[in-house]
Amino acid sequence: MPVAYFETEKITHRNNSKLPLLIDDGCGFLGTWDIVTHLDAEYPDRPALMRNAEARALGRLVASWGDHVLFPDLLRVVLPDFLERLHVNDREWFRQSRELLLGATVEQLRENRTAYLSDLCRSLAPLRSALSVQWFLGGDAPGYADYTAYTMLVWGGFASREPVLEEDDPLQVWMARIEDRFDGLPRRLPAAA
Amino acid sequence: MPVAYFETEKITHRNNSKLPLLIDDGCGFLGTWDIVTHLDAEYPDRPALMRNAEARALGRLVASWGDHVLFPDLLRVVLPDFLERLHVNDREWFRQSRELLLGATVEQLRENRTAYLSDLCRSLAPLRSALSVQWFLGGDAPGYADYTAYTMLVWGGFASREPVLEEDDPLQVWMARIEDRFDGLPRRLPAAA
Repeated sequence: MPVAYFETEKITHRNNSKLPLLIDDGCGFLGTWDIVTHLDAEYPDRPALMRNAEARALGRLVASWGDHVLFPDLLRVVLPDFLERLHVNDREWFRQSRELLLGATVEQLRENRTAYLSDLCRSLAPLRSALSVQWFLGGDAPGYADYTAYTMLVWGGFASREPVLEEDDPLQVWMARIEDRFDGLPRRLPAAA
Repeated sequence: MPVAYFETEKITHRNNSKLPLLIDDGCGFLGTWDIVTHLDAEYPDRPALMRNAEARALGRLVASWGDHVLFPDLLRVVLPDFLERLHVNDREWFRQSRELLLGATVEQLRENRTAYLSDLCRSLAPLRSALSVQWFLGGDAPGYADYTAYTMLVWGGFASREPVLEEDDPLQVWMARIEDRFDGLPRRLPAAA
C-alpha cells in the first residue's frame, strides 16, 4: 500500500507511524533488522537471510555502513531529483529535513552533483574489491548484507533521473546476479511513482 | 626480525621482497589473506580466524574497507610523524611514494591534521554502530575482521605522536576487549622503534 509522508496516520499499528513495518500473522515487526530476524526464525524452509552468527555480523556491519556512508552519499546525489518524485504536499517538509541532515541546500547539491557522484563511487570501492573475488557480499550466496546494499542502490536509481552507477561499474554485474536469483523480477518493476 | 625498507634484500624467499610473508614448515605464504587461510587450515585446534564462508566474506569486506578507507585515512593523519620513526635512509623514498599515493605533501598533511582526524573519526562510524550491539565485528568472538581493523588502528597509534582515537571513543572498549583475549599482551609491547 503506497503511503505518502503526509498520510502516515494511515499506519496505525500500535501508535507507530514509522516504516518499514511488517505485519505477519497479527504481529508487527518494526525496522529492517527485526523484520529480517523474524523472517529467518519463522520461515526456516526459505533461504536464510542471515544463516549464522557470522552472517548476522556481516549483515549488521553492511547495514551500519549503509546508514552512515552509502545512504548519505546517495542522498547527496539524488535529493534534487527525488523531491520532484514526491507528492507535492511532502516536498517542503522533506526538503527542509534533508537539507538539515546533509548540511547543504538542494541548490548546492545540484551544483556539486559531479563531486558527490565521485564521492559515492569512491565509497563503493570496498564492495567492488570484495566482489572481485567472490560472487556476493555474503560469499557464494546472497544474504542480508547483499540485499541491504543492493536495495539502497536500487532506490538511488529510482530516485535519480540519471544513473547513479556507471554502465561499466563492476557492481552492475553483482546487482544483475542478485536480480537473476529472483528471475529478473526487480528489472520488471515499474520505476518509482 | 626487523627489516628497514632499504634492506628488503634480506627477505629472500623465492625472489620475493614483499611483506607480510609467513614461512611455516618450509613453505612460504605471502600476503595477509593467504597467511590467514593457511593458519586456519593447518591449525584446526586453534581458534579459527574465519570459521565459515560467512566469516570469510566478512573478513574480506573489512579487509577491503581497511585498504580503501581506513588505511588511507590513517596515513593522512600519521604520515608526518611516521616519517620520523623510519630509518633515515628510508625517509626520502617513503615520503615521495606516499605523497604521490595520497595526492598531498607532508606539509599539507600536517597543516590539515585536524580535518583528516575528523574524516578518520567519521569513517569509523559503521564500526562503532555495529559494536554498539555486539561484542566484536565477528559477532560473539573476534575473527579476522576484528584483527585486520584492530591492527591498522594499533599501527596508527604507534606511528603517531598523538592518539588517533579520542579517549572516550567506544572503539577503545572493543580494542581493549581484543587485548584481554590475549591476556593484555598487545598493551605490554614496546612502542614502534
